[in-house]
Amino acid sequence: LSLFKRVAIIGFGLIGSSLARAIRANGLADSIVAIDRSAAVCARVKELGLADEVTQSIAEGVKGCDLAVIAVPVGAYSGVAIELGPHLPKECIVTDTGSVKQSCIEALLPHLSSPERLVPGHPIAGTEHSGPDAGFAELFRGRWCILTPLPQTGIRAVEKVAALWEGAGAAIEIMEPRRHDLVLAITSHLPHLIAYTIVGTATDLEEDTRNDVIKFSASGFRDFTRIAASDPVMWRDIFLNNREAVLEILQRFNEDITILQNAIRRGEGDFLQQKFTRSRSVRRRVIEAGQADPTAKS
Amino acid sequence: LSLFKRVAIIGFGLIGSSLARAIRANGLADSIVAIDRSAAVCARVKELGLADEVTQSIAEGVKGCDLAVIAVPVGAYSGVAIELGPHLPKECIVTDTGSVKQSCIEALLPHLSSPERLVPGHPIAGTEHSGPDAGFAELFRGRWCILTPLPQTGIRAVEKVAALWEGAGAAIEIMEPRRHDLVLAITSHLPHLIAYTIVGTATDLEEDTRNDVIKFSASGFRDFTRIAASDPVMWRDIFLNNREAVLEILQRFNEDITILQNAIRRGEGDFLQQKFTRSRSVRRRVIEAGQADPTAKS
Repeated sequence: LSLFKRVAIIGFGLIGSSLARAIRANGLADSIVAIDRSAAVCARVKELGLADEVTQSIAEGVKGCDLAVIAVPVGAYSGVAIELGPHLPKECIVTDTGSVKQSCIEALLPHLSSPERLVPGHPIAGTEHSGPDAGFAELFRGRWCILTPLPQTGIRAVEKVAALWEGAGAAIEIMEPRRHDLVLAITSHLPHLIAYTIVGTATDLEEDTRNDVIKFSASGFRDFTRIAASDPVMWRDIFLNNREAVLEILQRFNEDITILQNAIRRGEGDFLQQKFTRSRSVRRRVIEAGQADPTAKS
Repeated sequence: LSLFKRVAIIGFGLIGSSLARAIRANGLADSIVAIDRSAAVCARVKELGLADEVTQSIAEGVKGCDLAVIAVPVGAYSGVAIELGPHLPKECIVTDTGSVKQSCIEALLPHLSSPERLVPGHPIAGTEHSGPDAGFAELFRGRWCILTPLPQTGIRAVEKVAALWEGAGAAIEIMEPRRHDLVLAITSHLPHLIAYTIVGTATDLEEDTRNDVIKFSASGFRDFTRIAASDPVMWRDIFLNNREAVLEILQRFNEDITILQNAIRRGEGDFLQQKFTRSRSVRRRVIEAGQADPTAKS
């Protein structure tokens, strides 16, 4: 017996298409409806055969579904909610994959007649590639999926969404939405902002220097270019929708880099060594927590 | 016929021990002398059987060598040069692997009687691990090795050192020392400084938040922890010895992050999207240049 009869996935990019593949691979639903506002994406999803039905219309796509998964950029939530609300089947559970939770909840709630069936979620997984071709069924395996249910969310709805992600190989963590947004501001949003900045700084150099920077990027820079290759629209929306947490943690970062800057200027070697030694121990904890990149050599 | 008869490698950490393994694997020298001031490292090198001779004494180790490779942290160059100078065989070529070139040259030159046999070098390769156990013969394969010969350096010496690195699988680039230091400040030194900073910022958080940051580090942060796990002494010395270039590029970075910070504060989505789109294209150029991490999945 499948977990869901008919799952609508709204937004069929990296995350949406990976979830569809994982649902198929693990038999988590009887059928999948792919919904994407882009005709090109819909055509490609048909070619790849990733869903049982493909449509550009949310109203049409969610008919008869018992689960709707919103997997669009955070800035598109209001538009999706307006279309989705009136056509949502009465018993349909709604979940999402947005990287910011508080603002996503605020965008969705006013348009849902049954808030007890809203289970906000965020799978901590991704690559720097976008679109339905970039997805793969194993994307969520061994990763966390954070759920941030509201006080009014029904326990049965949470259990079913949790079972879906567990079926795709993820482990579940339950969190307050605002806490999620703070933790992700540090672990994800600030790193991306910094990676975008440093890659931009390098891009502004004189052309011959810029060419050398590309050529010798293996010395650290290339890791930043990978992070900074992530989807621009998705990241624009994240920064606009998690503004306060991002600006607060960025302020702390700025203070810390000023301290290191001054230590370098004054030649304070002992201080630098002590700071760097401390950072090394954090890496050990990441490895112990099983969160080091399994595909990286070291 | 081997390229060198007897190679002394001074400093037997990640780089020194990897070079020794590469020399053996590719038959680039008849014998290898491992020199390290640490008795523990010397004992371990003997256990691992990585060299034909192992000694803590530079004076003793370089006897009869036709190549000496300095692979110690940049801050230890003066001490090494003082010991090495008087005992260097007349025909012995000297090269190094230091991540900063101008200051390394300045530390070595006064102590060498034959500056025409000094070939400063820097293989653009490494991992976040340290010590003789961390080395492997393939570390330099497909990577660049930058040589920064002086006006007085003999062409034959440059050719022989180039042949050594090529034999280990690297490609050679010739550069001015100061230009090397500027390019590396951008591609390597600034990324490491930023990674150290952001990991430090996270370490200063309240304990429960810090635990969550470790737990959910797969969303970007973990890549920074890997970079920030690099050898603290090596990096202390790099920042102290490439101070001007690092501070200059850090200044540009600070200006750029302030611009993005203001754009987030003011909600300027179009500006952010445009900046992020530009960064994505840099990643494509890194991949085209063949410098993407071959061990990373994406």
